[in-house]
Amino acid sequence: MVTQDRAIRTRRTILTAAAKVFEERGYRAATISEILSAAGVTKGALYFHFASKEDLAEGVISEQDQQLPIPERACKVQEMVDAVMVHAFRLQTDPLVRAGVRLSLDQQAQGLDRRGGFLRWSAVGVELLTAARAQGELLPHVVPTVTADVLVGSFAGVQAMSQTMSNYQDLPARVTALLRHILPSVVMPSVLAAVDLTEGRGAAVNDELQQLHVLQQAAALT
Amino acid sequence: MVTQDRAIRTRRTILTAAAKVFEERGYRAATISEILSAAGVTKGALYFHFASKEDLAEGVISEQDQQLPIPERACKVQEMVDAVMVHAFRLQTDPLVRAGVRLSLDQQAQGLDRRGGFLRWSAVGVELLTAARAQGELLPHVVPTVTADVLVGSFAGVQAMSQTMSNYQDLPARVTALLRHILPSVVMPSVLAAVDLTEGRGAAVNDELQQLHVLQQAAALT
Repeated sequence: MVTQDRAIRTRRTILTAAAKVFEERGYRAATISEILSAAGVTKGALYFHFASKEDLAEGVISEQDQQLPIPERACKVQEMVDAVMVHAFRLQTDPLVRAGVRLSLDQQAQGLDRRGGFLRWSAVGVELLTAARAQGELLPHVVPTVTADVLVGSFAGVQAMSQTMSNYQDLPARVTALLRHILPSVVMPSVLAAVDLTEGRGAAVNDELQQLHVLQQAAALT
Repeated sequence: MVTQDRAIRTRRTILTAAAKVFEERGYRAATISEILSAAGVTKGALYFHFASKEDLAEGVISEQDQQLPIPERACKVQEMVDAVMVHAFRLQTDPLVRAGVRLSLDQQAQGLDRRGGFLRWSAVGVELLTAARAQGELLPHVVPTVTADVLVGSFAGVQAMSQTMSNYQDLPARVTALLRHILPSVVMPSVLAAVDLTEGRGAAVNDELQQLHVLQQAAALT
């Protein structure tokens, strides 16, 4: 158990270093030597976890959705909104999440399969939309795969625009505006009226998750 | 007049070459020498039009909205949809437009002011939405600056997702899906019912523009 904890920590140290190097140098220019020296681990430790630069980049990309799950909600549309809003909050605050999203959009990253981030987020969206539909929360014409792709694609662009225009300062406002434009075409009006789409939602749910984590750790110690 | 035509052609040759080099090498790695040799023009000709690599990149970025205007429509929402759909069609078919959009999203392009593309498209959106509102086509709560930014940001992401997932093959379908999700929150239902959002719209309006261009040239010769 202790060994496994250490392996998880080392893996995260390497990914954080890789994220930093990819951010600064771009995927194409970044080298494994630079990542090694930023991580301060041995070559053996790095290659134990990751076989190649591509493998490291895919590891960084997949970190962005590893920190789920979001707290379960009675209203599945709210749960989906929470997933989007917390992701936006993490983009503002977590360099690893930021690097993963940027790698997914790095059109110069030849040889890197960048579909993973899009596919996993779409799968999360389809799952939540399907659950929402089962509870009667969605308008009857909604096709979960189509709506999930619209949400994932549009979020990717809104975050890129926010990064360009304000270095992510205006991201919560832009995400709220996006959801206010899309959800009325997806969600029953009576359900949407009770969904919290406000700009502070991401930070609030993130706090909730931190508190849950502390409680879980305390429970594990007793 | 002949000299001016030649200058316009040379400028376009240089921009097309720059677009190609930026696409292949990324903004950061690209050099003016590579652009010179791809363009096949003299150094003097290049520097007559562009002072620096940044200037070349901004030229490529601004080409994406230079090919407007879209034909005027009685329904301003249709005119806005046409602008979006033709842009999507050009993204599929014109390497210069594609390079401009990619440069706008190139987060490794340090020292390049990438806001221009977003700002100009937002301004186009605000203008058309304001005209649409003056004709009573919009729902009363719509704020044109907010809606324009949502459209521009979400389009940027949907095109990036389409490039990653299908090398732009599914772009018209994704853009139609995006507009079907956003416009019901923006446009009066009775107006929206008459707007053509189908996937073939971009190609059809592009054909219309080509025919207009041929007619204008014929008229100029008589």
